[in-house]
Amino acid sequence: MKYTGCAYYPEYWGRRRLKTDIRLMKEAGINIVRIGEFAWSRMETKEGVFNLEWLHSTIEMFGKNGIEVLMCTPTATPPAWLTSNCPDVLIVRPDETRMGHGSRRHYCFSSDTYRHHCRRITKKLSEEISRHMNVTAWQIDNELGPESGSCHCQNCQSRFRTWLKSKYGTIQELNQRWKTAFWSVEFTDWSQISLDDGRVELYSAQKLDSRRFRSDMMIDFGMEQMQIIRKKHPSATVTTNGMGPIFTPINYYKLYEKLDVACNDLYFDTTTMDNDALALDVFRQLKPNSRHWLTETGSGALDHNKPSHKDQFRAWAWSSFAHGAEAFMVFRWRTCLSGQEQELQGILEHSGKPRHRFESVKKCFQEIISIREIINPLPLPEAQVAIIQDYETLWGYDSARIGKDIEYINLIGRLHREFYRRNILTDIIPPGRDLNKYKLIVLPSLLMISEEFASNLKGFVRKGGTVLAIGQLGIRDFNDNYIPAPGPAHLEKLFGIGIEGGIYLRSHCDPDLAMGNPNLCKHVEVGMAGKLNGAKVSGKAKIWIGDISVSDADVLLTFSEDLYKGQAAITENKTGKGRAVYSTGIRLSEDINEKLLDYVLSVSKIKNGPPAPLHVEVINRGNFTFAINHNPEPASVPLGISGKAVIGKFKDGTANLPAYGVCVVRK
Amino acid sequence: MKYTGCAYYPEYWGRRRLKTDIRLMKEAGINIVRIGEFAWSRMETKEGVFNLEWLHSTIEMFGKNGIEVLMCTPTATPPAWLTSNCPDVLIVRPDETRMGHGSRRHYCFSSDTYRHHCRRITKKLSEEISRHMNVTAWQIDNELGPESGSCHCQNCQSRFRTWLKSKYGTIQELNQRWKTAFWSVEFTDWSQISLDDGRVELYSAQKLDSRRFRSDMMIDFGMEQMQIIRKKHPSATVTTNGMGPIFTPINYYKLYEKLDVACNDLYFDTTTMDNDALALDVFRQLKPNSRHWLTETGSGALDHNKPSHKDQFRAWAWSSFAHGAEAFMVFRWRTCLSGQEQELQGILEHSGKPRHRFESVKKCFQEIISIREIINPLPLPEAQVAIIQDYETLWGYDSARIGKDIEYINLIGRLHREFYRRNILTDIIPPGRDLNKYKLIVLPSLLMISEEFASNLKGFVRKGGTVLAIGQLGIRDFNDNYIPAPGPAHLEKLFGIGIEGGIYLRSHCDPDLAMGNPNLCKHVEVGMAGKLNGAKVSGKAKIWIGDISVSDADVLLTFSEDLYKGQAAITENKTGKGRAVYSTGIRLSEDINEKLLDYVLSVSKIKNGPPAPLHVEVINRGNFTFAINHNPEPASVPLGISGKAVIGKFKDGTANLPAYGVCVVRK
Amino acid sequence: MKYTGCAYYPEYWGRRRLKTDIRLMKEAGINIVRIGEFAWSRMETKEGVFNLEWLHSTIEMFGKNGIEVLMCTPTATPPAWLTSNCPDVLIVRPDETRMGHGSRRHYCFSSDTYRHHCRRITKKLSEEISRHMNVTAWQIDNELGPESGSCHCQNCQSRFRTWLKSKYGTIQELNQRWKTAFWSVEFTDWSQISLDDGRVELYSAQKLDSRRFRSDMMIDFGMEQMQIIRKKHPSATVTTNGMGPIFTPINYYKLYEKLDVACNDLYFDTTTMDNDALALDVFRQLKPNSRHWLTETGSGALDHNKPSHKDQFRAWAWSSFAHGAEAFMVFRWRTCLSGQEQELQGILEHSGKPRHRFESVKKCFQEIISIREIINPLPLPEAQVAIIQDYETLWGYDSARIGKDIEYINLIGRLHREFYRRNILTDIIPPGRDLNKYKLIVLPSLLMISEEFASNLKGFVRKGGTVLAIGQLGIRDFNDNYIPAPGPAHLEKLFGIGIEGGIYLRSHCDPDLAMGNPNLCKHVEVGMAGKLNGAKVSGKAKIWIGDISVSDADVLLTFSEDLYKGQAAITENKTGKGRAVYSTGIRLSEDINEKLLDYVLSVSKIKNGPPAPLHVEVINRGNFTFAINHNPEPASVPLGISGKAVIGKFKDGTANLPAYGVCVVRK
Repeated sequence: MKYTGCAYYPEYWGRRRLKTDIRLMKEAGINIVRIGEFAWSRMETKEGVFNLEWLHSTIEMFGKNGIEVLMCTPTATPPAWLTSNCPDVLIVRPDETRMGHGSRRHYCFSSDTYRHHCRRITKKLSEEISRHMNVTAWQIDNELGPESGSCHCQNCQSRFRTWLKSKYGTIQELNQRWKTAFWSVEFTDWSQISLDDGRVELYSAQKLDSRRFRSDMMIDFGMEQMQIIRKKHPSATVTTNGMGPIFTPINYYKLYEKLDVACNDLYFDTTTMDNDALALDVFRQLKPNSRHWLTETGSGALDHNKPSHKDQFRAWAWSSFAHGAEAFMVFRWRTCLSGQEQELQGILEHSGKPRHRFESVKKCFQEIISIREIINPLPLPEAQVAIIQDYETLWGYDSARIGKDIEYINLIGRLHREFYRRNILTDIIPPGRDLNKYKLIVLPSLLMISEEFASNLKGFVRKGGTVLAIGQLGIRDFNDNYIPAPGPAHLEKLFGIGIEGGIYLRSHCDPDLAMGNPNLCKHVEVGMAGKLNGAKVSGKAKIWIGDISVSDADVLLTFSEDLYKGQAAITENKTGKGRAVYSTGIRLSEDINEKLLDYVLSVSKIKNGPPAPLHVEVINRGNFTFAINHNPEPASVPLGISGKAVIGKFKDGTANLPAYGVCVVRK
Repeated sequence: MKYTGCAYYPEYWGRRRLKTDIRLMKEAGINIVRIGEFAWSRMETKEGVFNLEWLHSTIEMFGKNGIEVLMCTPTATPPAWLTSNCPDVLIVRPDETRMGHGSRRHYCFSSDTYRHHCRRITKKLSEEISRHMNVTAWQIDNELGPESGSCHCQNCQSRFRTWLKSKYGTIQELNQRWKTAFWSVEFTDWSQISLDDGRVELYSAQKLDSRRFRSDMMIDFGMEQMQIIRKKHPSATVTTNGMGPIFTPINYYKLYEKLDVACNDLYFDTTTMDNDALALDVFRQLKPNSRHWLTETGSGALDHNKPSHKDQFRAWAWSSFAHGAEAFMVFRWRTCLSGQEQELQGILEHSGKPRHRFESVKKCFQEIISIREIINPLPLPEAQVAIIQDYETLWGYDSARIGKDIEYINLIGRLHREFYRRNILTDIIPPGRDLNKYKLIVLPSLLMISEEFASNLKGFVRKGGTVLAIGQLGIRDFNDNYIPAPGPAHLEKLFGIGIEGGIYLRSHCDPDLAMGNPNLCKHVEVGMAGKLNGAKVSGKAKIWIGDISVSDADVLLTFSEDLYKGQAAITENKTGKGRAVYSTGIRLSEDINEKLLDYVLSVSKIKNGPPAPLHVEVINRGNFTFAINHNPEPASVPLGISGKAVIGKFKDGTANLPAYGVCVVRK
Repeated sequence: MKYTGCAYYPEYWGRRRLKTDIRLMKEAGINIVRIGEFAWSRMETKEGVFNLEWLHSTIEMFGKNGIEVLMCTPTATPPAWLTSNCPDVLIVRPDETRMGHGSRRHYCFSSDTYRHHCRRITKKLSEEISRHMNVTAWQIDNELGPESGSCHCQNCQSRFRTWLKSKYGTIQELNQRWKTAFWSVEFTDWSQISLDDGRVELYSAQKLDSRRFRSDMMIDFGMEQMQIIRKKHPSATVTTNGMGPIFTPINYYKLYEKLDVACNDLYFDTTTMDNDALALDVFRQLKPNSRHWLTETGSGALDHNKPSHKDQFRAWAWSSFAHGAEAFMVFRWRTCLSGQEQELQGILEHSGKPRHRFESVKKCFQEIISIREIINPLPLPEAQVAIIQDYETLWGYDSARIGKDIEYINLIGRLHREFYRRNILTDIIPPGRDLNKYKLIVLPSLLMISEEFASNLKGFVRKGGTVLAIGQLGIRDFNDNYIPAPGPAHLEKLFGIGIEGGIYLRSHCDPDLAMGNPNLCKHVEVGMAGKLNGAKVSGKAKIWIGDISVSDADVLLTFSEDLYKGQAAITENKTGKGRAVYSTGIRLSEDINEKLLDYVLSVSKIKNGPPAPLHVEVINRGNFTFAINHNPEPASVPLGISGKAVIGKFKDGTANLPAYGVCVVRK
């Protein structure tokens, strides 16, 4: 773990406290602080009038004490003189009212005026601050996204129309691609098209392009700042902080493409690691095999939660390192007295006193420091399984009227968990990555499939890989329109099936009136049965099922009731040296699901990790094995290796983990 | 079943596909298509510039293939040139923002501008299209109603004030009728009165007149088109499509009065027939003993639902015919690739391929065709029971602050179901119809009673009929104000009781604070007991109970607790040759309810239909009996007749019905 | 009970009905009527044109019949000529639309225009009406408060800025007190600050001052009218009617400070007395030991509720008197036929006929009259326990992002109930009252503590009093900012503890994803154990727990799990002649809670009231004891006194109470 750090607000706590804080930070093992992301009002007190002295002296003091600085641009929080002089930088809501001052992220990403001011402060800061040797990295803005809602000002509408024009060329082409002949929607002029504001049920194509435009606009906003910083401070690491596990408003693969490192603001849940393990596996692959930082995390339960255990912070830190993170930075040094975040707990209390969280952080960071040199060079952990996550599909479901039923992100989460609980490390990757280092590729209801990705998949299977596809596979084009042919687009032969149609399994009926069958009124289930690994299995499918025709595949399970009775539910096509397994049900009952996963793992020749209770992780990085217990009960885990404990207790091949305990073994 | 049809979108699928589609339609037994309702942008490409060639050639092609056409006016979806040239045609929301283009039903019904454009396209279409012999019917607009919300533009406000002026003459008269002296509401000028926008708690009288105005405006909008079409195409059937079971925004009795046939867009629920059977019984009587079409129905589960059984479509079709429908038209020929309805499944798949739904439709339609000639002339089914449904009462409850507690439509549904499950056919009719063909009239919490209707009821009972009245009977005037005298207005003598007051049975208390009685915090129940048919009965009343004084009636049940302890709960007054039964509780517990219904049926000399499981219907039309099984289990039903099966298996007087099976017996 | 009365609307029912109504009122025992609060449109028919003849003659007629009048200013309902001539008096919503006419409380409290009109009508009325001898009291407006939402017009914004200016002097001072350096919020001009409109997450300091300003504005509005009335009618009682139990938008302690009597519009719940008993204990102390009226109450279940028992009204009346009320006025004489309140039931029915509620009222009022002379002089009931209720803390929780979790009012209610169910009378008082008449003071999560109040508390304990403090004690300043030191501010020594930090016990996790621990996903509980009164106790804490350091106190219970394991949960510090007990958990499990209360009561030497079932109250006023049964079951209660029943059955020291029965005993 290269960096053990925290966020710090010198503009809030003032010069007098700095010495005390730095002393305590050093005691806690902090080697980097993130500063400046909300300090615009102190940096530029009037338009063009800068006051950076306090910043210089603070950074110097950190430098003298051996602490690096992650410097931020302060553009998430425009100062009051800016919002009152230029109200056009503020978000216009769908009801046409404009936001006021007093919050954050209340600006319009499309605003030329706002961008002008952002460029000036970014330029000034990067010119001045880059001279400090201990400023080694930059963060652009803070948690880019529509936290205060999306803007609907005329400037946004106009930029959206320009964006559409550059994408489609002519309004005729747009009409043809969106297929607007239904409901007389056909546009005759660009001015007739507005951004989706959630108040009207628009064509899914229009909603999808609205989402793409929003994402592009936010990325474009960030890239402007990146270019300025790179010019002034070419040696620095430039990034911005993201959120997880899967942030829906911005295509993070695109955002981080030109940045140096993916950053995750990840507040661990004190009760379950499910989502947090997913987030770690997502961020490790936001850039291909990327460097990956946790720019924010809690030093315990953050504001409301089950109270953390004193060793839980340490478990999170080691888990993050094991998953591949190279920075672990706490939000924030001290709990703020005022404002919207006054209940979010820092390492120090409101009082400035160190208490439990300080002790947790100190113990953990000092331990990391003690073996930092030997663990930092370790290679990233390697996964044999990849789950495909695609923003096109994600936004496609969100844009379609009942596509939300699929619960696309939950579906990825549920699939990830199946591997997580077997201690099989998983990469979450977008289509377009190199597939050949994996043994198993999982496609969770991948609505839209490009010819290029289809071709990669075919190559992967040809060489011996296994593909497991679930649900709505390749049945829409990239304008969220159904393809006028059976799916899966470009993959009919690989899977040997046609997806002819299907149905969402949710009932219309009103339970109060459903005298007959009130149980059917929520989620409907449809039975399926067959054989997996030679054993009989049966169970239920929920959410959506497909109408499958089979050309080449083996039918493993069939539906046992209703309209598709007797038709294929799960199929397998052996082709080349590999196989393509397809399951039509989006959510299978636990029994089938577990056996299906066992089956694809076995044919992929992927073994489960060491047997361990749920939430006890075992992860390898190079010649090190990390065993981390996220439970309040102790656990003994046979790691199946021989070696020597660098941290924790390891005896006769078994890691003995107390509550929230950690064991690091060098083979 | 005169018509077996579907909706078709030639403007979407294009000329090239037409031949294939017509071939498949003929194979499926389709003899009518509905076209044009969303095609304005293709019919009138700029203001006053028409392009109807594609329409003419399409209609001709249908004509050559023996397929009739139900031609629609396209006014549900104004084209983009219209909404952008004349933004005043668009709905203004309560927050004063105006809707944009890209959806449907986003226009203002009051707009003179919009009506001008609608008259032009309607005139043009009816002039041109009426020349095709196979165009036999017209549909005005599509599903008239406030689907995108009601408009609040100044034009609407102004029309509303004119409407009020013509109703009340003077502002003084309005004040007197609305009784505005409470809360200083008294208006001094018409301009002070606006339409209810749901943001302010207005007088119920003002809310009620807002609803009436909205309904009148939509009917008026439709009638304008009707007049144009009737003039240009006098021989055609003119109608518009409605929704069910009970559509609340428009008084359908008034809407269909001058139209030729009532039309129902009815998507059957795959899990229960409760609501759908109700809808069929409502639409049969929208016009007195009217012709009645299903203009839209699903060819299976529509988008989300429990998947249908392959024979379920057939059961729905036969059930519709048995209930009296003469057209059964599927929405729509093929699933749309794009737009807001892309998940609604057509007869063909997105791909254009026939699959399960095509097979279901074809099997059913070909069977209908095989006996069409002998069943089409059958008389409508005859009901002995009528339930009164009144828009005045419906809107009265909706306008009053806690009147919604009554759940008026659910109450009608629950009463209807009592007869449906006994296989006793029921008519749902408005006040004002001829009552003399019935044996039993049910008044479900009929808030407002006119002198004329009261007089009809008295005549009906005098001649031997039974009336069963429930709940809030005749206690308000037609401005939704309570009458300054005990109810039931005009019917005190018929029932021999006075409704002196009453109370809604819902508790105020907060469960978290109700340390004492948390169970009482939702719906309160009040006990009642007595005798029905000589047997002791007891149970509970919910929702509302009345404070009843008895002048002439026999008391069958009394309240057994609380304020009204010992007072009448259910009464009966024998008068003339008939009786008037009154029950104060809006929702009775199952036991009492069932016995009360048994009692009124027995005194009305109405017998239950053949004994059959729930959702197995037995209905007579002329000398034919139709038995339809809407369940996934087979059923044997002794019909108590002798005859010969035209469809299905009938032996020894018993219909043997497989899952979703149908048996048609000629006596 | 000095007054037994009702609200009456002569402007609605007209002159002709008056005689009948007065006759029935006298029969019912009514000696005061409240009139005029909604009659502006009848009093001033055009701007400056008054018509008060009807009012004079009505008041005279009451006078002749010995009925007093509580005259109201009609400013809750501006007439239509006013709202249409001066639309700037109407509320502007957060979405910038303006309310229309037809409701009530739709005016802006800040509007100079509106205040001008209010002064004119108030002046005119008080000049004219004060001449009637039987007009003995005035009510200002009606239920002051933001019933129709708060106004956001420019006038409000401008007044708010003036209010802030007068509070803080300079914008620099405001920035410093609000501590705006986080998120660059620092204001540079007053115009940048707007009232909280609930649409943006603002600083809690800004939200808190918005609430204070709103409260001040409403009080200021009322005081304007008070001054006019006092000048014209100096002998009259002047008041306004409030709501309970704890009305959050207005600081009632401040509102009633200059008024003569606190007034409570209290509609009793037919199912539980919990909240109503609390309301009576709150209003008795809105002014120190004040006169206290019930200006509105139901004559039975009001509109929706469990139906009342025929004697329940009487139980409410006696309970109110026992708790200290001197007026009991029913809303309203007769149920209104029209308008928004048409379902609220009056003493007479819509029909004008007396039925059950009339009989209930008559029986009760005549009984009161029969002993009025001997009970009216009784002193107020005396409480040994006081619970502190503070609007600063209340608004502080509401303004903070997750402070609402505390459920401050519920917490007071739950604590009150602990005493109520032991028949121990409790005063609810603000900080700043004389504490010395109490034995026990309870501080329910008192967020903000002034130096002055702290000093009072210390004196109270020094002299032998017991303080029980719960939860978040003195950890924020009066700008809702955390204090940069451990709490409890000013009371560290009294309690001998430091509140170093704490955590809200609510989980982040999504139950659907929490494969591991779905039960933890709502409210988290943390175990605690120890000894009270020498016996072992253990249980759970919910909502929030504190991180407590102990300097001087005895630790009674400690946390038994999680981060604070082994730390103090409940402490006691004996100091002076008294003690200060602190419990960190906001909501304790029932077992601990009960034992903790037993403990503090025993050390405070406060005995439980006579043993009685829940909701059977026993209260003393002077030498009278009142026993009231609020349950449908009879109850026998040993009062532990000797004396003679003035009302009800009292034998051998035991009150024998039928369902909803009352027993009044003179010792």
